[in-house]
Amino acid sequence: MRSVYLDNNATTRVDPEVVQTMLPFFTDQFANPSSGHNFGSSASAAITTARRQLQALIGAEFEHEIVFTSGGTESDNAAILSALEIMPDRTQIVTSVVEHPAVLTLCAHLEKRHGIKVHRIPVDQHGRLDLQAYRMALSPHVAIVSIMWANNETGTIFPVAQLASLAKEVGAIFHTDAVQAVGKLPIHLKSSAIDMLSLSGHKLHGPKGIGALWVRRGVRFEAMIKGGHQERGRRAGTANTAGIVGLGKAAELALKFMEDENGRVRSLRDRLEKELLQRIPDAFVTGTPLERLPNTSNIAFEQVEADGILLHLDRYGIACSSGSACTSDSPEPSHVLTAMNIPHISALGVIRFSLSRDNCDDDIDYVLDVLPGIVSDLRGSSSVTPKRAKRRRPLGFVDPKEKGRNPS
Amino acid sequence: MRSVYLDNNATTRVDPEVVQTMLPFFTDQFANPSSGHNFGSSASAAITTARRQLQALIGAEFEHEIVFTSGGTESDNAAILSALEIMPDRTQIVTSVVEHPAVLTLCAHLEKRHGIKVHRIPVDQHGRLDLQAYRMALSPHVAIVSIMWANNETGTIFPVAQLASLAKEVGAIFHTDAVQAVGKLPIHLKSSAIDMLSLSGHKLHGPKGIGALWVRRGVRFEAMIKGGHQERGRRAGTANTAGIVGLGKAAELALKFMEDENGRVRSLRDRLEKELLQRIPDAFVTGTPLERLPNTSNIAFEQVEADGILLHLDRYGIACSSGSACTSDSPEPSHVLTAMNIPHISALGVIRFSLSRDNCDDDIDYVLDVLPGIVSDLRGSSSVTPKRAKRRRPLGFVDPKEKGRNPS
Repeated sequence: MRSVYLDNNATTRVDPEVVQTMLPFFTDQFANPSSGHNFGSSASAAITTARRQLQALIGAEFEHEIVFTSGGTESDNAAILSALEIMPDRTQIVTSVVEHPAVLTLCAHLEKRHGIKVHRIPVDQHGRLDLQAYRMALSPHVAIVSIMWANNETGTIFPVAQLASLAKEVGAIFHTDAVQAVGKLPIHLKSSAIDMLSLSGHKLHGPKGIGALWVRRGVRFEAMIKGGHQERGRRAGTANTAGIVGLGKAAELALKFMEDENGRVRSLRDRLEKELLQRIPDAFVTGTPLERLPNTSNIAFEQVEADGILLHLDRYGIACSSGSACTSDSPEPSHVLTAMNIPHISALGVIRFSLSRDNCDDDIDYVLDVLPGIVSDLRGSSSVTPKRAKRRRPLGFVDPKEKGRNPS
Repeated sequence: MRSVYLDNNATTRVDPEVVQTMLPFFTDQFANPSSGHNFGSSASAAITTARRQLQALIGAEFEHEIVFTSGGTESDNAAILSALEIMPDRTQIVTSVVEHPAVLTLCAHLEKRHGIKVHRIPVDQHGRLDLQAYRMALSPHVAIVSIMWANNETGTIFPVAQLASLAKEVGAIFHTDAVQAVGKLPIHLKSSAIDMLSLSGHKLHGPKGIGALWVRRGVRFEAMIKGGHQERGRRAGTANTAGIVGLGKAAELALKFMEDENGRVRSLRDRLEKELLQRIPDAFVTGTPLERLPNTSNIAFEQVEADGILLHLDRYGIACSSGSACTSDSPEPSHVLTAMNIPHISALGVIRFSLSRDNCDDDIDYVLDVLPGIVSDLRGSSSVTPKRAKRRRPLGFVDPKEKGRNPS
């Protein structure tokens, strides 16, 4: 049976070239990079190379602005906790309703247990941030703003450069969870007002268990994980040399493929989306189709349950998801789609297709062959064929003419 | 030039068998183990296997008592912060003066910034815990006791089972940093009063960037890193499948080699130590030679600087360390040896030789060939030869007859 993996926002396949780059650091250059001897020095030099590869991908001014962590969740937690530690007089956080649980769960805890006030900025039905509410929430009481660069479920891109500039006006630190953006969008931190950025290796064909928090030089920082002096005192614990080297290589490859491959992925995604909507009636894309990651399509199918679709796709060897993997064991409807006030959300089967440079035309053909029949069968009707698919303006679809209402 | 790596307490070479076990999880079974599809399920199953392998190594009763983390430092931090969160009425910590920075740095921060009282139990000149001071520090105000199983510099083993029983009497949680003990000593958590235990993959021939915190069933726990529901809500962030699988395999191998290989390593260590002391005058072993890790020898050389010894050993391809890798960039004398009140500590060159199952007789021969000359040269004297080495009772050496003063 054919295998088609379209769940790349959950995780990506490690590029074989990345694995090859990592291998010597397990059994050959395995020493502790903090060790003073020659064994340690070669590991330490490899980490410097990785730091520069990552610096190039995100357009950072200084390589030492990069702090290696165990992943995106740790980076998000560390950013928020640092801001509260270094500015104890500021007791508010501004975030959005559609953030990753790595931000929302921590914020809920801080609110409940530590008296922190959390402003959760709403989004409209297209997933775009309510800029007016955002401006209203900003004040000199805010220690940190944490707004994602792009949403993991819908792919909606937020105007983080603009949001960061506004946050600076009230002296708040601006952090962005860019786990889904890094490697998919060009990023130039040097020329932005962003203070901190989280990224994760395994979302860009690097290994799991490694990520980074970029902290702009001059931004005070208090380590969350405390101990040894690693990462200039900003993240204790023996450096994960192989993971770091793998992340560096993944960053180099992502930069190399940024233009051509992301363009190709976007074409695949657009074809999948267009033809699915042509072949399956009563389906629509959630989120804005314009300011959106090139690899993500989140499609709602009416009168059918997501679990049923996923189960049948899985039997055909096709991996997709509803919501994010991090909440896959939760029976609740997606907090992202709920926040978008999509009508009848509980009666919709919403499937996220997330592509990567590992995908090809044949993958798309296979899904287009298989999925219309699955939805049709699940709806208990055999009347749906590609040719007879109804055309109608889907519930949550944004008209291209509306572009620019939420500048980004 | 020959390469001899005797810095295994800083980190170990990943066992090639461990690397082979990890490889499929980078490019084949790479899916997010939290994903519901078949791609995710196979990764999830591999994690269960690893959990059981680790469970066997540490003698835990339930596999789900194991929480995978990014390493020993994170585990230590998470244990201490959890205890303070779940018992907010208890505002004291008991630890020792010779803990790893992962415990001491966090404790210093909590003391300075969050009003937590920290009891740092002293040790005697042999590195053994002052049991009377320990008993005195225990009270119903103590949220958590954190005492290492074995010291990373001297190898001294602490009587954690006994210490845990005493901690239970006042209702405190007992945590042990067993990063240096796991894989080197038999551990049977099931039958102990210990509540939490930290371990690290890269200290037992597993990969860096992965570790675990064992949390006894029934012990309440608040996650430090918050976000998704991974690890039953006890550690958020996409599971590092390859790292976890590698740690599991490393645990399996450690258990397999526990008896034979650790015995062989102990013989190598004993020979190295005995012959070095025979060939080099004015040198002594720090810490108790009895209750000690089988792989560690920490030797103080009088009238010579550690940096000089290390530099010359490095030129001969021999990797050792003074103090720990985590503090290698600090100019301060080791906090462990300082705490032991070793006389004239600042005028001693103290070198840690830490072996593993990767070492062989030839490694020891090579060090024995090279080191006496190095020390002799550095002392500016050519009079030291093995045959003329003085025999005297070294400053910090414990007489075997004194055994039992600090029962362990």
